[in-house]
Amino acid sequence: MSDKHLSTQFDAELSAISSRVLEMGGLVEQQVCLAVDALAEFSEAKATEVIRTEQRVNQMELEIDRDLSNIIARRQPTARDLRLLIGVSKTIGNLERVGDEAARIARTVHRLVANGTHGRLFPTTQMSNEAQLATASLRRALDAFARLDANQAMQVIKEDNEIDAEFDGLMRKLVTYMMEDPRTITASIDLVFVAKSLERVGDHAKNLAEQVIYIAKGADVRHTPLDGLESAVS
Amino acid sequence: MSDKHLSTQFDAELSAISSRVLEMGGLVEQQVCLAVDALAEFSEAKATEVIRTEQRVNQMELEIDRDLSNIIARRQPTARDLRLLIGVSKTIGNLERVGDEAARIARTVHRLVANGTHGRLFPTTQMSNEAQLATASLRRALDAFARLDANQAMQVIKEDNEIDAEFDGLMRKLVTYMMEDPRTITASIDLVFVAKSLERVGDHAKNLAEQVIYIAKGADVRHTPLDGLESAVS
Repeated sequence: MSDKHLSTQFDAELSAISSRVLEMGGLVEQQVCLAVDALAEFSEAKATEVIRTEQRVNQMELEIDRDLSNIIARRQPTARDLRLLIGVSKTIGNLERVGDEAARIARTVHRLVANGTHGRLFPTTQMSNEAQLATASLRRALDAFARLDANQAMQVIKEDNEIDAEFDGLMRKLVTYMMEDPRTITASIDLVFVAKSLERVGDHAKNLAEQVIYIAKGADVRHTPLDGLESAVS
Repeated sequence: MSDKHLSTQFDAELSAISSRVLEMGGLVEQQVCLAVDALAEFSEAKATEVIRTEQRVNQMELEIDRDLSNIIARRQPTARDLRLLIGVSKTIGNLERVGDEAARIARTVHRLVANGTHGRLFPTTQMSNEAQLATASLRRALDAFARLDANQAMQVIKEDNEIDAEFDGLMRKLVTYMMEDPRTITASIDLVFVAKSLERVGDHAKNLAEQVIYIAKGADVRHTPLDGLESAVS
């Protein structure tokens, strides 16, 4: 077996890993969208579907991580390939946590319906802005990963502030709502955590984007302040 | 340079990495304890200290991760050593997130004091149980890492349920408190997030423990149900 052959085989392995990450990403993105829909419609069927998918996502995390270890152990990856493998390992950890947040939202939908509190609730339509920003950010981060596009990844990092601002606004509205009718407090606290879950989805999208930059450019921009981002990447 | 010499040098590198992880763990543990104290005493000085330490913790994460990549790229670690290196990479990610939660609690203390709402607040002493469980769990996880003790790690994983139960109890008390005096809602929501942060510290301690088992036994027990834990490890 020639060196060329070996290298081609290695490339195929790397590319297979990337495809699986994107598959996992697609699954997780779908979970978040479905969880948001489940909340908007108080659909128990959709909530159940989100929770059912969690196991598959968890399984993918374990499998991809195992494959990564095997590849590193068998091959002697170059610094560049190693960066991809380590970046991927962190990426799937992030994706799994996004899936966790989706499942959390879905379990909240079940509880709200079971308690019969979803009838007189803070209108969940008011959460659609945050939900849209968070899912868009996640989608953009996955696109950036697919094309190893550092510029798009920087965009994702920069827009995280908007999601945080939307979260803060929602908190103020929820507090006002609770004050006006304290009987809604229990159910409102559930929505406080939903808003928090969406904000975390945005955080994870940002983390994904940081890994894209690490893989594409070799720059570890975690904990880099926004105004130092451009120079750290170039 | 003989093979033996090389191997000894590698061992020294691995042991240096482990020491740095424990140093980072000690720093983070201290941050959590200090944040809990800051909340109990509404001490702005302690809260400031927690936030000040965050940068050092973040810096350690970046440095250790860079060292890990360098070691993997330079050496050809055996499967066992690679397990340690990958486990350590996940471990420091977890520790950094614990530090984040401590900083969140500290920022909440600043806000409560600034708003002057800490005077007529839900008694934070009622949160000391959850805080104690979470910090004890974190300490035990770090001990388990220091000694690569899989049994102690399993203990940490099992006791996470207690922290969750304590969190649920606190939520019920906080809701009752808000219902009785809706003027406390804004400040109480802050405490809801503090309780959540402590619950997350417990989650991260569990995640740390899972990595200890991975390093010590080679078994990836993430997502393993409690009743399957013993058989997965042995």
